[in-house]
Amino acid sequence: MSKYLKEKYASLAPYVPGEQPRDMKYIKLNTNESPFPPSPLAIQYAREEAERLMLYPDPELTSIKGALADYYGVKRECVSATNGSDDALNFAFMAFCDESTPALFADITYGFYKVFARLNHIPYTELPLLEDFTLSVDDYIGRRGTVFIANPNAPTGIFLPLSEIERLVASDTSRVVIVDEAYVDFGGESAVRLTEKYSNLLVIGTFSKSRSLAGGRLGFAIGSEELISDIERLRNSTNPYNINRMTMAAGVGALADRAYFEDNCKKIISTRENTSAQLRKMGFTLTPSSANFIFASHKSIDAEQMYLTLKKNGILVRHFTQEIIKDYNRITVGNAEEMQILIDKIKEIWGDIL
Amino acid sequence: MSKYLKEKYASLAPYVPGEQPRDMKYIKLNTNESPFPPSPLAIQYAREEAERLMLYPDPELTSIKGALADYYGVKRECVSATNGSDDALNFAFMAFCDESTPALFADITYGFYKVFARLNHIPYTELPLLEDFTLSVDDYIGRRGTVFIANPNAPTGIFLPLSEIERLVASDTSRVVIVDEAYVDFGGESAVRLTEKYSNLLVIGTFSKSRSLAGGRLGFAIGSEELISDIERLRNSTNPYNINRMTMAAGVGALADRAYFEDNCKKIISTRENTSAQLRKMGFTLTPSSANFIFASHKSIDAEQMYLTLKKNGILVRHFTQEIIKDYNRITVGNAEEMQILIDKIKEIWGDIL
Repeated sequence: MSKYLKEKYASLAPYVPGEQPRDMKYIKLNTNESPFPPSPLAIQYAREEAERLMLYPDPELTSIKGALADYYGVKRECVSATNGSDDALNFAFMAFCDESTPALFADITYGFYKVFARLNHIPYTELPLLEDFTLSVDDYIGRRGTVFIANPNAPTGIFLPLSEIERLVASDTSRVVIVDEAYVDFGGESAVRLTEKYSNLLVIGTFSKSRSLAGGRLGFAIGSEELISDIERLRNSTNPYNINRMTMAAGVGALADRAYFEDNCKKIISTRENTSAQLRKMGFTLTPSSANFIFASHKSIDAEQMYLTLKKNGILVRHFTQEIIKDYNRITVGNAEEMQILIDKIKEIWGDIL
Repeated sequence: MSKYLKEKYASLAPYVPGEQPRDMKYIKLNTNESPFPPSPLAIQYAREEAERLMLYPDPELTSIKGALADYYGVKRECVSATNGSDDALNFAFMAFCDESTPALFADITYGFYKVFARLNHIPYTELPLLEDFTLSVDDYIGRRGTVFIANPNAPTGIFLPLSEIERLVASDTSRVVIVDEAYVDFGGESAVRLTEKYSNLLVIGTFSKSRSLAGGRLGFAIGSEELISDIERLRNSTNPYNINRMTMAAGVGALADRAYFEDNCKKIISTRENTSAQLRKMGFTLTPSSANFIFASHKSIDAEQMYLTLKKNGILVRHFTQEIIKDYNRITVGNAEEMQILIDKIKEIWGDIL
């Protein structure tokens, strides 16, 4: 830190992304990436743009907004797109929270919410999940503040039914509810269709997981025209050229290739269910995941030890040190072969005590 | 705007990028893009990454920081990289200005400085340039605040000698001076070498102009380890995956292909001088440009009319309505053929009065 840094940022604790070690080749099950490459159409479109990079991207994001609007069946004025969904989340914190409008989110959820609140000097309350890691919307109803809900939640994978989201949104239309649907394509149901009915609902999505574009950085927000105009106002005051040409084209390609997307989602769901069954057979306790990861704990295996031992054996999973979830590891669903290697490795190492 | 938008953002006036009309094919001389495609190496590297987009980019930006450090001969801890240089500028406004540390910049300069100040609720003073559009550092010396200087300046193209930058930086080491060198490769001299001597100097650069990557979105900051750690703290609290895989690779390729870069810069400088000579012959008044654009005024041609007429004739230049410069148009230096078409068109339209 320099002596010039303004004090309000001096105590920032940045988000800690999952590790990306390069000392050996790992089976990477730690950052919820897709095991499948992007759609061939996404790759082709991105590559075609490479030779046009001397020209700025379209600051109005016409192509990707149009493709998203068509895909989700909403007006194009109801869509914004960002440099990953983190950017959309940051804009939502900025636009809809301030010193007198705190942010409300679960104590166990995406770790970046806290960072965005601190970055923007927004007070926040972390509301405890129930003991089974489910979220009770009644905890939020009647409480002042802008609500952020990851649905399905991370790192538990638990999906909150849309009827509960609607009950929360409808309970107080004087505040905004942001639903972060990074993992919704793996078994959840999107709240996008509720955005036509409720002007206080903002849905945020990403191309990083189900569309295999984590490395491209593409997120989006869908809501009422008014909420989207707020997000756009911040986008245009921060970085109107926020999405590069190649990524914008890749996003259009990914949305066009619906069959590839649906097939990948099905494969991941099937592999998740298969792996979950095997883990349960070995005595692991799992949360019911609707995401592309499994959240697993075992009464006889220390979770941090398990993470470290798997890492030594070439498999990366993610362990969080937060007290309530320190007995769990979050395991991204890779392809069937990778998950079989994981299962075999667990049997090999802990076979005696399982 | 929604009723939910926090009041502090309600009066934001976003930056207005140069128009990108799509009603016909234009010769685009309005957004200071390069007329040349990116280096073949940049294109190749970017394309290779397209099939790896399911994986997140490296949040530590190891490859591009390393390439920049090598290129500029600085330590890698003295480099950060961002989603276009606008992001680096925004972080600099956040880190080094606040309610009691205003931003200081010229009244005629890059229009986004004002937007960043407003976005972050930072008071700012626009200091008038001298009558010939040059900047007097004495206006800044002894005045409290963080200084932002575009060098060469936009839209005038005028380069402030490094000795003057050094005099400004050295005059008060208790404040930060940010030098925005978007156009430095077309005849200016980079202040990077001064960053080793002065820990209060931050240099910001971009791949958008001289490296033909406007559509890729890649900027960077170079300064003392301490200043860079501040920028990194904000980057990691905003978007640690800020640069997508393809752009990061393109940047590495662009830096590696030094011959291509140098050749393009030479061509643009030569075309600028040639076009400038022809415009002067026709009675245009030009500022002495060290950038990839020409700032031109004519006593017999209304500048806005000229812009509108050229647009009707398929040539886009940029006109600013700001009072002091409303008699000028900013004309990006395209390739030799494009500039000849411009010259011919001007002769064709205004030949009678020239």
